[in-house]
Amino acid sequence: MNNFTFYNPVKILFGKGQIAAIKDEIPAGARVMITYGGGSIKKNGVYDQVIEALKAHTVLEFEGIEPNPHYETLMQAVDIAKRQKIDFVLAVGGGSVIDGTKFIVAAMAYEGEDPWDILAKKAPVTCAVPFGAVLTLPATGSEMNSGSVITRVETQEKLAFGSPFTFPKFSVLDPETTFTLPLRQISNGIVDAFTHVLEQYLTYPVNAPLQDRLAESILLTLKEEGPKALQNPKDYDTMANFMWCATMALNGVIRVGVPTDWATHYIAHELTALHGIDHARTLAVVLPSLLRYKHETKREKILQYGERVWGVDAGTVDERIEATIQATIAFFESLDINTRLSDYEVGEDTVKLIVQRFQERGVKNLGERADIQIDDVEQILMASL
Amino acid sequence: MNNFTFYNPVKILFGKGQIAAIKDEIPAGARVMITYGGGSIKKNGVYDQVIEALKAHTVLEFEGIEPNPHYETLMQAVDIAKRQKIDFVLAVGGGSVIDGTKFIVAAMAYEGEDPWDILAKKAPVTCAVPFGAVLTLPATGSEMNSGSVITRVETQEKLAFGSPFTFPKFSVLDPETTFTLPLRQISNGIVDAFTHVLEQYLTYPVNAPLQDRLAESILLTLKEEGPKALQNPKDYDTMANFMWCATMALNGVIRVGVPTDWATHYIAHELTALHGIDHARTLAVVLPSLLRYKHETKREKILQYGERVWGVDAGTVDERIEATIQATIAFFESLDINTRLSDYEVGEDTVKLIVQRFQERGVKNLGERADIQIDDVEQILMASL
Repeated sequence: MNNFTFYNPVKILFGKGQIAAIKDEIPAGARVMITYGGGSIKKNGVYDQVIEALKAHTVLEFEGIEPNPHYETLMQAVDIAKRQKIDFVLAVGGGSVIDGTKFIVAAMAYEGEDPWDILAKKAPVTCAVPFGAVLTLPATGSEMNSGSVITRVETQEKLAFGSPFTFPKFSVLDPETTFTLPLRQISNGIVDAFTHVLEQYLTYPVNAPLQDRLAESILLTLKEEGPKALQNPKDYDTMANFMWCATMALNGVIRVGVPTDWATHYIAHELTALHGIDHARTLAVVLPSLLRYKHETKREKILQYGERVWGVDAGTVDERIEATIQATIAFFESLDINTRLSDYEVGEDTVKLIVQRFQERGVKNLGERADIQIDDVEQILMASL
Repeated sequence: MNNFTFYNPVKILFGKGQIAAIKDEIPAGARVMITYGGGSIKKNGVYDQVIEALKAHTVLEFEGIEPNPHYETLMQAVDIAKRQKIDFVLAVGGGSVIDGTKFIVAAMAYEGEDPWDILAKKAPVTCAVPFGAVLTLPATGSEMNSGSVITRVETQEKLAFGSPFTFPKFSVLDPETTFTLPLRQISNGIVDAFTHVLEQYLTYPVNAPLQDRLAESILLTLKEEGPKALQNPKDYDTMANFMWCATMALNGVIRVGVPTDWATHYIAHELTALHGIDHARTLAVVLPSLLRYKHETKREKILQYGERVWGVDAGTVDERIEATIQATIAFFESLDINTRLSDYEVGEDTVKLIVQRFQERGVKNLGERADIQIDDVEQILMASL
């Protein structure tokens, strides 16, 4: 097992009716800005529950944080929040709203000249305005970690940052808030969470059997509950299990002491930045191709994954690896998530463009062995056409 | 799944060499009291590493916290720490030293008349002096939770308390610190951690498949790594895996949203309080007997445990339940942990005494269904003679 540091101070309030509890979690007298997206929370009752819970607080609203939250939009929120002397922010929505809010609270307290440096130059975040979250879409795990991914429309860049200061103080996970989600978002969420686990699991063995089994526990549960969630998205227990899987997939527990990959995410972000393809769908395209390309260095873990998650235990090593990748693809496709670039009308020109962008950005050494270079990225993408 | 709140802000520093990191985790200028047990840390180099790391801090020592830490001893530490204006405590040792330190830091800040009320009257702990831990014995999980069990010698009572203020600020888990442990303590640690998982797992199903699998992950890993630890207690990876299992067994992750039992612990504490039998051994005596006695209400989970952890998948329901309990007993015995009261020269008179003590204390409604009464305790203990 590798050495590690684990720290996750997020308080989770899980279950039906828990939105009411936020009144005790936000300091009395705080000036609160509620951040949210396109207004679905006003249709499904979540907004009303939040407003009811905060009736003793001073509340301001910032609406319109889009999927793959835009730097340009978030900077408007920062401007308003500073002028209004906001001292607590409450994100109400999915991963985009929560990611966007992490950037807002970091930028509000940023003392450098240009908050864009937090993303582009990895300028350290040394403080932030406190914030909490009410999650409405299980997927990204942002509700229980300190990471955030932001898109700058102007330059078509999608970049990540994180800091010990951007953990939510609390997150409410009420499965009932998911009952009105479009099926497309449920599919995306399942694939997103599943891929998060694989990024931390399909690397190489370091004699960490507990971490392996914890990762497999999430995969097996998503395999079981995911299709049920699509069949019956108003079943409380199914959505609760899916929701908790998505949170556990990226709260740090399965990552400790093991190598992690994240090359799939790094490459896939480009497809969203350039073509606006849903994040989960870009993962479903890149991942199988990357696993095939890197199957030699990932061999032992792919075989273990195949056997323990998909019951692949017969055939030669190569056959089992291919059967495992096929099982993963079949799972994604069964959730109505296409896995080829051509399914999204993306062609070779985009591959060339991504290669060019990576060259300009000096990208190198991706993956758990830091051995994926730009040439490899090109081959991985070409194989996913 | 049941509603739940999860909160665990303990920072874990895991791996060889991590003791040196405590210098940056304890505030500069803090007046530190180091608490420890019988001095084994002076023989295995841990003490020297701690002193070296804290050479820029003002350090006072309190030695002599015994197994099943004594209220009487801890109150001496409280007295000294208050007089010396200690503002950070560092526990160096196993669960007893850490449990004892939690009581010390709570009692130091307690504003009521008698700190014993924290244990005897469940007087709320509303603040505490900050503390950290350097763990040397994987077993109790105390390094990553806020709970504590204290024994009062005068009255032969063993009582528990916990508070959001008694989480360690950090815990160092360096597997190398375990290399000189006596085999007896390794056996105890494995059984203690294993039983902690079972207390949170062998109840009744609430449709929480992820929590079930996470619990089984720890059980399977302890089953695998436990015997290896006894065979080769200086194997770094083995001890690292055992250490992380013991921490994960009681840091709250597997408990969320599911019922928990803890009747085994409640009953077993009496055997330690009255006869000084090692905590883990008292668990190994009470647990099998309790499982047999409550096998009807625990049926579904015992069957699942048997199948997934011990491969018990043939026979009638009753046969499978018995085979599962037998497998558990065989595991404990394989670790040189006896599972009958008579193995410890404890007889019926002690059973009567425990019943009498429970009557005096008005004990009732133990277990996940709150259906274990004093009569049931008597039958469980009689069956374990």
